[in-house]
Amino acid sequence: MARKDLLELASLTREEIDRILEQAVPFKELFTRSVKKVPALKGKSVLMLFYEPSTRTHSSFEVAAKRLSADVTNFDVPHSSVVKGESVRETVETLQAMRTDYIVVRHGRSGLPGMIARQTKASVVNAGDGAHAHPTQGLLDAFTVKEVFPEMSGKRVLIVGDILHSRVARSTSSVLRRLGVEVAYLGPGSLVPKCCPEGVRRFTDYREAMAWGPDVVYLLRVQMERQDVQYFPSLREYHRVYGVTRDRLDELEDKGIWLMHPGPVNRGVELCDEAMDYQRSLINRQVENGIAVRMSVLYSLKPGASGDEEAEGEAEASLE
Amino acid sequence: MARKDLLELASLTREEIDRILEQAVPFKELFTRSVKKVPALKGKSVLMLFYEPSTRTHSSFEVAAKRLSADVTNFDVPHSSVVKGESVRETVETLQAMRTDYIVVRHGRSGLPGMIARQTKASVVNAGDGAHAHPTQGLLDAFTVKEVFPEMSGKRVLIVGDILHSRVARSTSSVLRRLGVEVAYLGPGSLVPKCCPEGVRRFTDYREAMAWGPDVVYLLRVQMERQDVQYFPSLREYHRVYGVTRDRLDELEDKGIWLMHPGPVNRGVELCDEAMDYQRSLINRQVENGIAVRMSVLYSLKPGASGDEEAEGEAEASLE
Amino acid sequence: MARKDLLELASLTREEIDRILEQAVPFKELFTRSVKKVPALKGKSVLMLFYEPSTRTHSSFEVAAKRLSADVTNFDVPHSSVVKGESVRETVETLQAMRTDYIVVRHGRSGLPGMIARQTKASVVNAGDGAHAHPTQGLLDAFTVKEVFPEMSGKRVLIVGDILHSRVARSTSSVLRRLGVEVAYLGPGSLVPKCCPEGVRRFTDYREAMAWGPDVVYLLRVQMERQDVQYFPSLREYHRVYGVTRDRLDELEDKGIWLMHPGPVNRGVELCDEAMDYQRSLINRQVENGIAVRMSVLYSLKPGASGDEEAEGEAEASLE
Repeated sequence: MARKDLLELASLTREEIDRILEQAVPFKELFTRSVKKVPALKGKSVLMLFYEPSTRTHSSFEVAAKRLSADVTNFDVPHSSVVKGESVRETVETLQAMRTDYIVVRHGRSGLPGMIARQTKASVVNAGDGAHAHPTQGLLDAFTVKEVFPEMSGKRVLIVGDILHSRVARSTSSVLRRLGVEVAYLGPGSLVPKCCPEGVRRFTDYREAMAWGPDVVYLLRVQMERQDVQYFPSLREYHRVYGVTRDRLDELEDKGIWLMHPGPVNRGVELCDEAMDYQRSLINRQVENGIAVRMSVLYSLKPGASGDEEAEGEAEASLE
Repeated sequence: MARKDLLELASLTREEIDRILEQAVPFKELFTRSVKKVPALKGKSVLMLFYEPSTRTHSSFEVAAKRLSADVTNFDVPHSSVVKGESVRETVETLQAMRTDYIVVRHGRSGLPGMIARQTKASVVNAGDGAHAHPTQGLLDAFTVKEVFPEMSGKRVLIVGDILHSRVARSTSSVLRRLGVEVAYLGPGSLVPKCCPEGVRRFTDYREAMAWGPDVVYLLRVQMERQDVQYFPSLREYHRVYGVTRDRLDELEDKGIWLMHPGPVNRGVELCDEAMDYQRSLINRQVENGIAVRMSVLYSLKPGASGDEEAEGEAEASLE
Repeated sequence: MARKDLLELASLTREEIDRILEQAVPFKELFTRSVKKVPALKGKSVLMLFYEPSTRTHSSFEVAAKRLSADVTNFDVPHSSVVKGESVRETVETLQAMRTDYIVVRHGRSGLPGMIARQTKASVVNAGDGAHAHPTQGLLDAFTVKEVFPEMSGKRVLIVGDILHSRVARSTSSVLRRLGVEVAYLGPGSLVPKCCPEGVRRFTDYREAMAWGPDVVYLLRVQMERQDVQYFPSLREYHRVYGVTRDRLDELEDKGIWLMHPGPVNRGVELCDEAMDYQRSLINRQVENGIAVRMSVLYSLKPGASGDEEAEGEAEASLE
């Protein structure tokens, strides 16, 4: 694989996805040892460019890079100022001039990491861009499902919440489906796209969705600080209609259904308190797998290789 | 020693304290060399979890960890949001899932580091929790007194200030007394506990306290941002009644008394300007010793070992 | 060379300047390799003490130090609080006690890095102090001009903007002139010192300045957040009178004149949009050279050596 960037999952071949997931296994195995580090990226520099704050994703990438022995530098972005296309372009030229090897970027604008990737020889990893994509989330979710169901084909994952605005929903369902998993969406009618991708079931009623027979229920995070709130009468109501209540937790337990969530959980909204100790919860495993998968992604990319051509056409943003 | 955590000094045996102090000597000696680093924790990760900002303690732990060749990652805590027990628990589960080896935690709530310690296999070091404990401060203070008085037994340390709310007073006097040092408290009546621990003298008058014959005067920092201010008529008045004024500095000098302070000093409050250049001031040596002692602490702990059982009973906080 | 600090360029001998520039060449060559790191400062600690925020200069020094294998620690300065001389002195005593090897300091007050240098055995690098000096900027600019014109003697550099308040103008013109380059200033009458240093031409009219025949036009950044704005009727007017407009860019192209700017550029103020893609722009090269030159500077200094005596006399600030 001579891929320079990871911008979105659609541009990866099935072989590349398989390779990233397989390669993550020995990285995860490393975490059980006393020395959790390999010299794979020794002497390489990773620059963290986060226009949106995210403690968890930031820490996950930082720990992943350090366990590969890379040097990590934060490029402090002035969150206060309005970040215009021009200033991003200038920042990227600066990073390119600094000869950084990898740039991990999160930005509220869809397509922006792709724009950056085309302007630099550094490998660019999209750590979330607007509602567009969050490819390493998709890969770590797939890795987690595969750990539980090594034969993924035909397994059923129900994704619950604001599908419409969720880059997690987009990335995770995209990679799961390519690996043969059946995916369904459940959420308020206004937040589940009317035209789901082919083969994706669409539900607005919890009971009907459960009748579909999911093996995994994947709760999306309610983005309190974003647009989600206006669509729900109240958080309490959301919990009642789409959350995993105590009663529904019992149902999951009875049916042996696994539980996933990208974190951090809004307790009492997506999940009741008791769900935090649910035996089939994969939430903490997703965190651990996130580091292993991100190590695998960084290790797979080749700075200086040719750009991610396929992604270019789809990019929604321009730096000019 | 197979201790996992350092939460408070009471749980350490006398042998453990002696070992930490002895072990800090070669670490301090290291600082006089050109390369101030040893590979002791190479490949280990240290996560800094500071819910209260503290430039000095943070830097001290960070430098200590790096001199042991560990990788240090800051876990940025959103200071703005109200930090509830639930979110701390979730954060800890995340850190546990990340397989970090050491967590250095500061929090305003007493007992919280102990709660964290029980939920993770990582070694937890309490870097200050509310008014409860600041064990590495106690150890570095003991190390500093021991440098000046290798035979500590029977030496006298007078601690001056707001004893009631001070975790420094609590931790430092605890360890000094276990090493045979006689401790007295001096401060406004309302800020010195009526029932001092057995054997601790209690003064409210500076002159009487000096008549006791201290070998070291240890000034606590006035916490301007906390509750202290309301107890004093004014800072100027505090300085006059309990501070080291010019006249009192002359007295210290005449009697050969040493001066300590945990830093940073409020000049003109605890100490007059001239005290900054006092020949028997140990304040800067406390900073240097802090790094050596923290290296010794990190080096002594064993991630994955059994928890700090003794501390459990005393914990005041719950994550639920 | 047994120099401890780099505070300002005036204190460097010609041999020292030549050595720093020569030594930066192999460091820059390193950036073309896969492993961009040398073990030169392995085991040394670099402390970043930035009282003024500066993403670019901070990142540049941080990357430079890491490429020398040094350990880098940020000492978080509370920007909100008023930073008085006393607190700086205490901070420096703390850093000295921590036995840090290098301190990179930026502060709004002229001469403050010099004060710090005298109080610590650490090597102090001035990363910008008020309107006084920014020596590594001067050195990287000289390095950049020398790359284009190996024989610098007799070449002409026109510096445009607010000369009066610019530490860049001061440092860059100082080093260029010592290397035989002819320097001229162009700007509004009120912002170009009436008494330029001997041999420096002074212009207030763009056309006259261009008639002087510069080989390089060096645009200073308009400091919107500082005093500059009040001197100009408007930014639009500034661009029209002193900026590189489209027409002037054509002129630069016709005459083969090179373009420099310390970054970040205010587009539409110092430079028109088209100038960002100008073939003879050296702006990105300045960024890359900045890392190489800063590596060379850190590598040249000797912590613990005698202080920068020459600078002492000129210092404008006092820590008392």
